[in-house]
Amino acid sequence: MSTVLTRLAEVLEARKGADPDSSYVARLYAKGSDAILKKIGEEATETVMAAKDGDAEKIIYEVADLWFHSLVLLASRGLHPDAVLAELDRRFGQSGLAEKAARGG
Amino acid sequence: MSTVLTRLAEVLEARKGADPDSSYVARLYAKGSDAILKKIGEEATETVMAAKDGDAEKIIYEVADLWFHSLVLLASRGLHPDAVLAELDRRFGQSGLAEKAARGG
Amino acid sequence: MSTVLTRLAEVLEARKGADPDSSYVARLYAKGSDAILKKIGEEATETVMAAKDGDAEKIIYEVADLWFHSLVLLASRGLHPDAVLAELDRRFGQSGLAEKAARGG
Amino acid sequence: MSTVLTRLAEVLEARKGADPDSSYVARLYAKGSDAILKKIGEEATETVMAAKDGDAEKIIYEVADLWFHSLVLLASRGLHPDAVLAELDRRFGQSGLAEKAARGG
Repeated sequence: MSTVLTRLAEVLEARKGADPDSSYVARLYAKGSDAILKKIGEEATETVMAAKDGDAEKIIYEVADLWFHSLVLLASRGLHPDAVLAELDRRFGQSGLAEKAARGG
Repeated sequence: MSTVLTRLAEVLEARKGADPDSSYVARLYAKGSDAILKKIGEEATETVMAAKDGDAEKIIYEVADLWFHSLVLLASRGLHPDAVLAELDRRFGQSGLAEKAARGG
Repeated sequence: MSTVLTRLAEVLEARKGADPDSSYVARLYAKGSDAILKKIGEEATETVMAAKDGDAEKIIYEVADLWFHSLVLLASRGLHPDAVLAELDRRFGQSGLAEKAARGG
Repeated sequence: MSTVLTRLAEVLEARKGADPDSSYVARLYAKGSDAILKKIGEEATETVMAAKDGDAEKIIYEVADLWFHSLVLLASRGLHPDAVLAELDRRFGQSGLAEKAARGG
């Protein structure tokens, strides 16, 4: 399971030069940065709605959509999900999210 | 790097019964589901703002915040990030996000 | 200018029974409540993006979109924008938003 | 009721030079543009949550919060809510939101 994000990042990288008609991601890149950001706002809203519905399957589906479009954003800026995981690890490593608590969240 | 999400999920699980004053996450659980969902909306907005600023470090920081609060949501519902990764893998496995393209995204 | 919201509320009320193919709003009602809520999340994100771009015309356009879909939400629940204006007036009447400050915003 | 937005715009304008400690809005201006935009994302999420709860009073309260922070954004950019109402009227005047339908919403 652990390499899913890495493999997905590779696919997203490979799609960068692709024909916009060839895939959803190629089309999203072609539409430009604002289209990607708009999707992040949308998927966050849908995650909230799924959680309000109390539908576990839908929550997983929408969080996957949210993370997916986060990965597209990262790829579009030449960033890798490992940097996000490292940031999470950095906070987590500091004795259980103490840093987050310290800055008042 | 690969086990960061799993280890974080374990920490989040362990925090469930903790004193609200003991950590940021314990406090968030105590505030209840709406407080967690509100954070997802907030962090998505901050991710969009960081991307608009074109600040790579801030993008990574805000995506980490967004994923972190997604993990808190999952934990609060008894769900595991592996289910999200499996969903991403399922889509990815279907020859490069074809499924996503098919449903019109 | 002052009656725009009232007149718009009347139009939105009148559209409720209309053929989904007859207008954007009739289609939105037909799609159901989640579709309306999703638009509110979308338009808020687009407002933030327009503001980040520093484009005054776009800010006005997106705030109009955000308010418009708020009005659709209100209409869909049998609520009137006057109730929102009354709530704003109630806060404003309390010597300049003091209530808002009091509850910590 | 009709002059609420105009009077609120006047108050927001007057608060611009005020001591950050004197009111919620003065504090928000002092925090800067990102703080205002973050509130718009937050309040949109809270509106969606209130609607999901099916709580009419809360919907009105949260839409008021959303509109209020939209007004703060407008004021912070030297814009007036009349411009937003004019934009709504322009669309509305074109035979019932036909323009909106035309551009595909």
